[in-house]
Formats: sequence, structure tokens, C-alpha cells
Amino acid sequence: MNYDIAIIGAGSAGLSAAIYAARGGLNTVVFENGLVGGQITQTMEIENYPGFEEVLDGFTLTDRMKKQADRFGPEFKTEEVKNVTLDGACKVIETNKTTYRTKALIIATGANPRKLGVPGEMKLTGRGVSYCATCDGALYRGKTVAVIGGGDSAVEEAMFLTRFVKKVYLIHRRDELRAVKIVRDRVFKNEKVEFIWDTVPQEVNGENGVESLTLFNKKTKETSKLDVDGVFIYVGIIPNNKIFENQLNYDDQGFILTDENMHTKLHGVYAAGDIVHKTLRQVVTAVSDGAIAAFSAEKWIQENEHKFE
Amino acid sequence: MNYDIAIIGAGSAGLSAAIYAARGGLNTVVFENGLVGGQITQTMEIENYPGFEEVLDGFTLTDRMKKQADRFGPEFKTEEVKNVTLDGACKVIETNKTTYRTKALIIATGANPRKLGVPGEMKLTGRGVSYCATCDGALYRGKTVAVIGGGDSAVEEAMFLTRFVKKVYLIHRRDELRAVKIVRDRVFKNEKVEFIWDTVPQEVNGENGVESLTLFNKKTKETSKLDVDGVFIYVGIIPNNKIFENQLNYDDQGFILTDENMHTKLHGVYAAGDIVHKTLRQVVTAVSDGAIAAFSAEKWIQENEHKFE
Repeated sequence: MNYDIAIIGAGSAGLSAAIYAARGGLNTVVFENGLVGGQITQTMEIENYPGFEEVLDGFTLTDRMKKQADRFGPEFKTEEVKNVTLDGACKVIETNKTTYRTKALIIATGANPRKLGVPGEMKLTGRGVSYCATCDGALYRGKTVAVIGGGDSAVEEAMFLTRFVKKVYLIHRRDELRAVKIVRDRVFKNEKVEFIWDTVPQEVNGENGVESLTLFNKKTKETSKLDVDGVFIYVGIIPNNKIFENQLNYDDQGFILTDENMHTKLHGVYAAGDIVHKTLRQVVTAVSDGAIAAFSAEKWIQENEHKFE
Repeated sequence: MNYDIAIIGAGSAGLSAAIYAARGGLNTVVFENGLVGGQITQTMEIENYPGFEEVLDGFTLTDRMKKQADRFGPEFKTEEVKNVTLDGACKVIETNKTTYRTKALIIATGANPRKLGVPGEMKLTGRGVSYCATCDGALYRGKTVAVIGGGDSAVEEAMFLTRFVKKVYLIHRRDELRAVKIVRDRVFKNEKVEFIWDTVPQEVNGENGVESLTLFNKKTKETSKLDVDGVFIYVGIIPNNKIFENQLNYDDQGFILTDENMHTKLHGVYAAGDIVHKTLRQVVTAVSDGAIAAFSAEKWIQENEHKFE
């Protein structure tokens, strides 16, 4: 056995799991192919992670978690996990370099918001382009923003934003909302929300922040410019579940189903953070998942130690 | 209506709920009769709350959460909640001073470990007396500790502590363990654990840290002294649920049952933190509960605004 526990992904869920597992005395390895810190590293201003009265950026927050984890000695490996075999007593993890065996596994591979894929979007992410009104809405007090999308999330977040902003343009590529009726009815009554139908964004314009959107009307074929201070994009979220396909239970969007102990359907396999089926995807919930997953894994290893002898 | 939302309790769960609710634009009140910060303020060294690479104490951590919440303007009231009526559209909260009406309520009243009630216990809490091995175990590397209790928690935590400490004395007032067989079998095999049966602690001795325990053997009626560096007390945990009696669903220990959105069985009523039925009682799970409860409450208020008009 190479390690007691492997954690795939070093975003906030994986880092919290690493802190708890390594501090709990488990021989711990963390695989991260990209940037340590995950999705939140793209956020410039976090003001709702409890414990930080000053605003901080996502890179700083997760860098601190990484240094905190390092105090307890988990190994971090910059290797891409290519394949996992999860149904035995011992979990087998194949990376682009070699193969590892561990007693338990925590999946913390996260999820990514679906991108529009238009010019300016990447450059201005965290600088006016956001995928999370709960995270960033309060930063737009008295401003004008656009919400892109027409599903429940888009409409609910547009409504939420009206608590702060002067005006919300809800830009949708069709001429009706996909959102459920009760949500639709409410948004139509809200005077701060103006609809722009049959329209898709072609470009997000601005240098250090969002200044405007270039829009294309699919019916009239006309192009126009709309001045906004921020853009909230709600066109879907994609769980990073590829390597586990068919080995676990998922919801209809592909997020992993767990019980309250973050336990998946397989013995010794846990999931934590954005990859999990849940209501609220935030750093604060990811770190909680990670801690619970590590705690559960540690209990499980303790109770099943004889299987690995 | 006096407020959109009331939060009862200003420990880490209540403070996190206050940050999320107030930042989310809800008119928020927090009731705390004791010290803001709750249970964790008694902990001297926290090294596993994600984001803090340096060790900090519980008072400092929750003081920072309080200041962070203050940025978003929730009202804190030092009033004792005497009675609540939760089954109407509008929640009625009676305190020792007056009566409030709110659209939603988050219960974050916490829980307290049952005390031994012996001299020295209070004075040395956070200075060698602990009620949480997951929190404090790693601080006792190479040391000698006592665990008081004989149930599953006491025995599991004694096992957990053997990862760090040189020796664990498991002190139990009976001559057999209440813990389940699989747990018992494992602890009997562990050479680091020594049992002291039929014995109760009479005093925790030490000035700035724990130095020894005064023990009383109930069978021989003899008193003795045992040198230890720390004492972990597992004789039960008491949820602070008095004012809600019979209005909610509870587990058999009196902790509130919620769904994954921290929703209790009543519309607009949520619970968060140590008061909730859960696996792992830590700051990291409490703040997550608080955030989820506030988020759920905010959605609920948004969808039911017509009921309050």
C-alpha cells in the first residue's frame, strides 16, 4: 500500500481534506494536475468566507490552506489521474507517471461553470465576469449588470442581484424562459429586470473591468452594444467526473451522490466539494465536505485495518 | 414584521449565517445571551480551520467572524430568547425584553459537552482539559493523556489519540465498556491504551496546564493520583434545544433533524451548527451549515414574499 488515503484535486475541498487527513495521522497524497487552489483562485474578492474580516482573493485564501496543510505533511503530486479502480478493498489510482494503491479515496475534482466561449470572457473573469451571484453580487451595489441564461439559476440569480444593483438585463437566446412558472411570474413583475430576448453575447468588452457587451440578435441579425458593469453567466455547470464514469451514483447533471458523511456508494470512497450533488457551491461548503470526508475515511480505515494487513 | 430573519445564537454557525444573510440583503437580527463566539471561544489552539496557516485561538477566530458580519450590518442583541412560536407564516420570538416577528428563523443555539463537574475542570478547559480529540489530539504528540468515559465516543477517541500520544489511560466508572463489540475488541488489542476500571476523577490538578488527576476507585474506595498531560472528557453532549421543545423533529439525543438544506420540518425554520444531528461537530462544519441555512432561508423568503404582504 502506497498511502492510507489519496485525494484527487487540490481546490478548497481537497485542501481541507488534506489538512484533516494528514493532521489525523493518515499517510496522505494529493493529486493536482492544474493549479493548487482550484476554481476559487479565479475570484478576486472573497468577503464571505467566515474568519476573514478583510476582503481577500481566492489565490491567497487557498495558498494559505496549502501552507496550513503542509504543516501536517501530506504529499502533493503534480500528476494527472488517468484511471481509477474503486471497487476493491484497495483503491488503484493510475496517473500519467505511475500507479498507486491506497486504503481510501476522496474525490475533490470540482466542477466548472460552462463558458460562453466569447472573446473577453476569460480575460475579464474575476474582473466583472462572474459565474456566481451569491459570491459576487454584493460587489455591484448601485451598478448595472447583465445575466446570461434563461433557466432557473439565471432567473433566480437575476432576482437576487436586484437587491444590490440598479438594473439587471436578462439576456436569453430564446424568446421565452426555461425557468419554472413561479420563478418566471416573479421576475416579470420585477421592475429592475429588463429582458433582452433572442440574443446572444458575442464579446465582453473592457480593459481592467467589464465596460460593455457586444450582442447579436438572432431574429433581426442586428449587432448592438450594451453598457454594463458586470456580467453573470448562467449557462450550466460541468462536473469533472470523467475518470469515475459508471463507478459511482450521479444526479442527472453528473454530480456525485453521497450520504451525509460524504460517502459514495463504494466502501472507502468519498467525495467533497463542487463535484458533489448539493445546494450551495461555495468555499465554505467545500471545506466542510473535505473535513467530513477525511474524518469519515479515517474512521473507515480504523475499522477496516485488518483488510489491508 | 421586525426583521426578515432571526438567528438565535452567535457561535460560528450563527455568525456565518449572519454574514450570508446580511450580505444577501436580508434584514437580519442575531440573538446571543452569552459570549459572541460560542463554544469554540474556550479553545486555545485551532490549527485545522482551513485558511489559517498560523495557529489561532477560538476567541480570535470568532471575533474576526463577528467583525466580518458587522460589515454587512446585521443587528446583534444581547437578549435571552424565552419562547418561540414557529408554525405560522410569521415566526414569533419572545425575549426577556420584548417580542419580535420575522419571516424566517435559523436556530444556532449549539450544544455543550457534559461536564464532569469536578474542581479544576473549568479552570483548565482549553489548557489540557478537552472535549474533542479531533480538535486537540494532535497537540499531544508523545505525551500521556487520560480519556474519561466508556461509550463509543470515549473508546473511538482513545484509539484516535494513540496516533499521537505515548500513552492513553481510559478511565471508566464501571468495570466494562458500553462501546459496541467491534470497537471494544480493537481497543483491548491496542498496547498504548491502559484501562482504569471502576474509577471516577475527583479533581483535575495543575496551574497553567494539566499535571495530574485525582482518582477515586469506587470498589476499593481508594484515592490515588495519576500524572497526565491532558484529559479528554467524553461523558455526553447536551444540545441546547429547550426553547424549541416539541415543535421540531429530533434524534434520540435531542439534536435537531434537518434535510441537506438545513431545513427543519417547519416552513421558514432552519438549524445550523452543533444543535443539528450530524457526524462531525467542528467550526468548519458549523460555518458551512450557517451559510447553507441563510442561503435556503433567503430563497424561501424570496419565493414566499406574498405571504408577508
